Amino acid sequence: MDLEQELMQRLTQSEDDIIQIRRHLHEHPEVSFKEKETHAYIKNFYHDLDCIVRNCGTGYGILVDIDSGKPGPKLALRADFDALSIQENNDLSFKSQNPGVMHACGHDGHTAYMMVLAKNLIALKNQLKGSIRIIHQPAEEVYPGGAKSMIKDGALKDVDNVIGIHVMSTMPTGAIGYHLGDSQTGRSNFTVTFTGKGGHASMPQLSNDAIVAGSYFVTALQTIVSRRIEPADHASITVGSFDGVGTNNVIKESVTLKGDVRIMRESTRTVIHKQLKQIIQGIESTFGVKADYQIITDVPVLYNDPKFTAQTVEDIKAANIPEVTQVTDFGAQDPSEDFSYFALKRPSTFLYVGCDVNDGQTHPHHSPNFLMDERCLLIAAKAAGTATLRYLFK
Amino acid sequence: MDLEQELMQRLTQSEDDIIQIRRHLHEHPEVSFKEKETHAYIKNFYHDLDCIVRNCGTGYGILVDIDSGKPGPKLALRADFDALSIQENNDLSFKSQNPGVMHACGHDGHTAYMMVLAKNLIALKNQLKGSIRIIHQPAEEVYPGGAKSMIKDGALKDVDNVIGIHVMSTMPTGAIGYHLGDSQTGRSNFTVTFTGKGGHASMPQLSNDAIVAGSYFVTALQTIVSRRIEPADHASITVGSFDGVGTNNVIKESVTLKGDVRIMRESTRTVIHKQLKQIIQGIESTFGVKADYQIITDVPVLYNDPKFTAQTVEDIKAANIPEVTQVTDFGAQDPSEDFSYFALKRPSTFLYVGCDVNDGQTHPHHSPNFLMDERCLLIAAKAAGTATLRYLFK
Amino acid sequence: MDLEQELMQRLTQSEDDIIQIRRHLHEHPEVSFKEKETHAYIKNFYHDLDCIVRNCGTGYGILVDIDSGKPGPKLALRADFDALSIQENNDLSFKSQNPGVMHACGHDGHTAYMMVLAKNLIALKNQLKGSIRIIHQPAEEVYPGGAKSMIKDGALKDVDNVIGIHVMSTMPTGAIGYHLGDSQTGRSNFTVTFTGKGGHASMPQLSNDAIVAGSYFVTALQTIVSRRIEPADHASITVGSFDGVGTNNVIKESVTLKGDVRIMRESTRTVIHKQLKQIIQGIESTFGVKADYQIITDVPVLYNDPKFTAQTVEDIKAANIPEVTQVTDFGAQDPSEDFSYFALKRPSTFLYVGCDVNDGQTHPHHSPNFLMDERCLLIAAKAAGTATLRYLFK
Amino acid sequence: MDLEQELMQRLTQSEDDIIQIRRHLHEHPEVSFKEKETHAYIKNFYHDLDCIVRNCGTGYGILVDIDSGKPGPKLALRADFDALSIQENNDLSFKSQNPGVMHACGHDGHTAYMMVLAKNLIALKNQLKGSIRIIHQPAEEVYPGGAKSMIKDGALKDVDNVIGIHVMSTMPTGAIGYHLGDSQTGRSNFTVTFTGKGGHASMPQLSNDAIVAGSYFVTALQTIVSRRIEPADHASITVGSFDGVGTNNVIKESVTLKGDVRIMRESTRTVIHKQLKQIIQGIESTFGVKADYQIITDVPVLYNDPKFTAQTVEDIKAANIPEVTQVTDFGAQDPSEDFSYFALKRPSTFLYVGCDVNDGQTHPHHSPNFLMDERCLLIAAKAAGTATLRYLFK
Repeated sequence: MDLEQELMQRLTQSEDDIIQIRRHLHEHPEVSFKEKETHAYIKNFYHDLDCIVRNCGTGYGILVDIDSGKPGPKLALRADFDALSIQENNDLSFKSQNPGVMHACGHDGHTAYMMVLAKNLIALKNQLKGSIRIIHQPAEEVYPGGAKSMIKDGALKDVDNVIGIHVMSTMPTGAIGYHLGDSQTGRSNFTVTFTGKGGHASMPQLSNDAIVAGSYFVTALQTIVSRRIEPADHASITVGSFDGVGTNNVIKESVTLKGDVRIMRESTRTVIHKQLKQIIQGIESTFGVKADYQIITDVPVLYNDPKFTAQTVEDIKAANIPEVTQVTDFGAQDPSEDFSYFALKRPSTFLYVGCDVNDGQTHPHHSPNFLMDERCLLIAAKAAGTATLRYLFK
Repeated sequence: MDLEQELMQRLTQSEDDIIQIRRHLHEHPEVSFKEKETHAYIKNFYHDLDCIVRNCGTGYGILVDIDSGKPGPKLALRADFDALSIQENNDLSFKSQNPGVMHACGHDGHTAYMMVLAKNLIALKNQLKGSIRIIHQPAEEVYPGGAKSMIKDGALKDVDNVIGIHVMSTMPTGAIGYHLGDSQTGRSNFTVTFTGKGGHASMPQLSNDAIVAGSYFVTALQTIVSRRIEPADHASITVGSFDGVGTNNVIKESVTLKGDVRIMRESTRTVIHKQLKQIIQGIESTFGVKADYQIITDVPVLYNDPKFTAQTVEDIKAANIPEVTQVTDFGAQDPSEDFSYFALKRPSTFLYVGCDVNDGQTHPHHSPNFLMDERCLLIAAKAAGTATLRYLFK
Repeated sequence: MDLEQELMQRLTQSEDDIIQIRRHLHEHPEVSFKEKETHAYIKNFYHDLDCIVRNCGTGYGILVDIDSGKPGPKLALRADFDALSIQENNDLSFKSQNPGVMHACGHDGHTAYMMVLAKNLIALKNQLKGSIRIIHQPAEEVYPGGAKSMIKDGALKDVDNVIGIHVMSTMPTGAIGYHLGDSQTGRSNFTVTFTGKGGHASMPQLSNDAIVAGSYFVTALQTIVSRRIEPADHASITVGSFDGVGTNNVIKESVTLKGDVRIMRESTRTVIHKQLKQIIQGIESTFGVKADYQIITDVPVLYNDPKFTAQTVEDIKAANIPEVTQVTDFGAQDPSEDFSYFALKRPSTFLYVGCDVNDGQTHPHHSPNFLMDERCLLIAAKAAGTATLRYLFK
Repeated sequence: MDLEQELMQRLTQSEDDIIQIRRHLHEHPEVSFKEKETHAYIKNFYHDLDCIVRNCGTGYGILVDIDSGKPGPKLALRADFDALSIQENNDLSFKSQNPGVMHACGHDGHTAYMMVLAKNLIALKNQLKGSIRIIHQPAEEVYPGGAKSMIKDGALKDVDNVIGIHVMSTMPTGAIGYHLGDSQTGRSNFTVTFTGKGGHASMPQLSNDAIVAGSYFVTALQTIVSRRIEPADHASITVGSFDGVGTNNVIKESVTLKGDVRIMRESTRTVIHKQLKQIIQGIESTFGVKADYQIITDVPVLYNDPKFTAQTVEDIKAANIPEVTQVTDFGAQDPSEDFSYFALKRPSTFLYVGCDVNDGQTHPHHSPNFLMDERCLLIAAKAAGTATLRYLFK
């Protein structure tokens, strides 16, 4: 029996383990940057296994090195493990036990399949070439993300390429998705406080109305996307929070707005940041208010190396995994993903594994009703496993 | 000694009582519609006096009738007694004992001088003609005000005219102010909630951004005052609250705005209400949002009957009250005052008594630093007292 | 027969002359700064009369001095004589002969009554005291107006006070109107050109859309009146011209906007000019356009000296002119009038004489349908005549 | 010598003819829908040639049929021949003789190479299979375009596929460009007139300011692209004309705005049209104005049939035309092109032929400085010629 066949068989036999781990994680979710118990749980899993485990980054990151001892390519596999500040709305036997916290994006599944895949690769370590690093990443959901500090702490040292996988409830279970090149948006955040002068509503001439300044700011902001960006280019700017809460008969002294920027090219980010500053300064002049603001460059555009991605996809297709029904270009996606930091440093690829429960309803990620067809986890494990073996022995 | 001289002398001798009562009230302020203790305090004051006292209105209003038993004119004197939701910032021996509540508008003084004036008028009752009604009004500061329900409950039955007085920190102590005709603004309140559709900031096409709708609403609102109202006419519209609090990367589903309208003619209020509705409906169409709104007609314009006011002012001038240094037209004022409800029903006048502490600083009404020169209270009592006597014996 | 009686009788007998002159002027209107024939016609009228006539100012202004040779007060009477760029729409025997030009404001009447009044005062010269100066002013309608250069050229030298009269189609014939203090608005003009970058509509990212900048400017402008001016204060700002004419598929490189400001206090003008500049600069920053602008202080607020006006009104009332049915406070008026320049230099008064033709229709000034009840002209002559005599002999 | 070699040799020998024709057309440009002389010139060219020529469409369109008499595929080649309303700014011996009219887009070249190619194909007619139709199209530049009425009049009857070529000054001479699928934007036009009520700038309350309504419309319009369209989708909306020309002190009664819409998916056009209507209706309500508007669906998205395009490109590459230095994917383009009407009806392809004069300057299409490297015309003829032969004999 060849190595790939053996790994596939082992994974098939481990499916219950994967699901059990996933359910454990689902029941005990922890929000980004606070994943203390999850960290301990993962480390404990590797305790007696033949691998090198170390903490990595300023948060709860973990690196697991599986070294064949033989020369060869050096691959990293990344799985994230943080949950969201959402109250679960599903009625499951393994429903979240932590009020207001939920694995509503599928990171529980990512981590579960990865742990079991890692365990099986460790078992086959002597038959491998090169090395495999498992990156268990915390804090994917929240700025500044967990990837950045792990990279700074050496997560990509002795790594040639990185593969990541995300389950996807808008794809049927059985499908694997990919995209070459720019694949998920880059993101920036901004906060701006406009301060005028408060006062009695009956005497506006003695005040300077910050709600008026903030409102004109929102309207002017629309012109960046509508007039400053090439029509075919990807760009969105949202003011998600306008805090001008006050009382009806008092002119508001200051308002604070918080916003979000998405782009698919870094040059577009540059244009937007510049225009944001211009508009903020313009509002200061137009309305005589003072603006305090911060524009933060958050995650970069996620770039799937075309050659590495194409090769990985070809490998997966060639493996003829029986549970896989299709492997298709899933297109570029509107959301952002901090895997992009790894992809910035090494030729990488980020794949999607369909997890639609197929009950005729929509279970979008980040919804309190998010559900995953757990069969997707074995598919993820097999796809990552076969891609790893074929990569190492290329 | 004639009656006026006697009353003036009595009031001069009662100055300490006025101040003591004022300080008691200042120490124990109660917000509008919650003036239970103040009500009890006032009623207790009249307990043994020769007058008829009854509760009036849905709140803590009190009527005190002083009837001479002889035919003659029927005058009402009104004083309000509610405090504000403000934390006092002054260091006084009689500083507010109620956290977050303060007599920052001077109603403590209004009530104090009126109680003592009433007591002295009661003492002279047999020498009077006609009748005097003291209207102790609660809840002047907050919609729907205390005046309305007192009037409904008969506060103006058997009353020909009404006089009210407000202390005024922007006038020097010693000054008395008046204005003929429209003298303080009418007010309306509005609340509007725009509901679009929430969603992920990276996919605006799936949502409908309520912050955008609310912001354009604020900008369109400016055109009512700038383009729809005669330039010489009094009008202001303020959005004092824009609640669009959310998170930066989520498109906001709904926002709630609260606003305030001031006018000096009821016809202008009509124009503004009509335009408000048009603009709200326009925003609904323009942005495809749903608007739930309320536009509430609050206090009317305060109309000082020119003839009655002129006569009252002439009477006060003629009395040559030694503490009064000037009696001047104070002009129309931007704020609103629910005394206007009385003035709508009977020829009335609302006067101002200067109370500037003259320390080189500004102590605006409704500020946590509001201060009153207590010498103004004797002046108020004397002005109201002399106006009453001369009115009754005209 | 006393002097006033004699003047009144003479004026009554001259009514046909007034009307004939008025009709001549109406038939031959000339627009502001081009009143060459009108100037010659007026000068010719005075040719053989016993008075001193001289040109005054940079335009077609004329001063006529009637000096009694005796000491006494020195009064000026002002009448304007320019017409408007309007095509007359009335069917009159003396309809305008000049295409596109019309006396649609009544200046023909002002000049006619004044010429005949002057002639009669000249005839009575020896019986007078002091001196009278007739100011025949051109170019009232158009910036920079005719008054300014006449004043610079000595029109007010040896003048103590000035009286002006305007016919008024919104007042019944027979009525005389006045107002004390600020009586007509001051005016400013502005022009602003925003220059961005033109280009192909399909590639906005390569251009900078000046129509967008101009439009946001108009919306921001609304906040000056709505938020920066005391609600009771008089203020209006109009953009009367937005020249962004182009073709639908080309992004517009530049737009030019022209506007008008009205105020009733010079301090309000200062606030508006300052805010205009701030907003223009704000638009420059917000949209990255270049702004070229001019803000021109045009006529001042027309201030009727209260004492002089009250005295003049009292004199007119006392004269009991039989054609006068009422003398009333006409209130402050929204439009502007460059008589204000005279009133700035000398205690002056500007009166209104009703001229409604009473046919159940509206004939507003500056309309192609403007009509005047010519009986108003004798009233104007008598009112000015009696005011003059009583002034001189006070 | 094989047929392709013979055609190539003939074309090489005809280069001077192509250039001479192009220069003639350049000297005598005619604007869209007025191409009377150009039409006559083209028809005269074919007069003695062995082909069938007929007028087609409501304008000056011409079809030239070259039928081999043998069965086989039926190909159409399209070239447009209208010029633009632009004053030429170049100093050429064959500079435009028609003031204000210029071939500034290269249609002179398209027609020139096509005429000479047609003549040579006619000469080789007996050696061909199937049939070739030359479509000489007028009025490409201006709505509603020339293609529509030609198609209605049978231009695509007995045609299987269509090829079009555009010279391109942003590509180096020698380069051929293509793109599969959606390749140039669809376009819509709109016009909207907002009517309020005119009046005197000093009395805005009596008017309804159309410039204000138009300006808010422009600002609201920005939200369609910024908030209603998927960020990755192609969309632009331009107001290219804002006609609010008036005088500074008169409130404008009505304004007319003209605009342009570009999209890359017809579903996006639908969204934009719907939003446009909503916003127009919203402005009507918000400002109480009346809106008259037209939204016109102009050219569709230009869709290059992927299979036919790929095949044509492969054929051109395989021909190894010596003057061709590269054949590359030129990407989707922002502008629109009414060739899209043909492509809607038949699998078609629209190619680009570089014509940069390489003088270090930019000579954009539709600029008065547009220049073309005439060597591109032989390349266009050879590319179209070889594509035709290989297509017919496939």
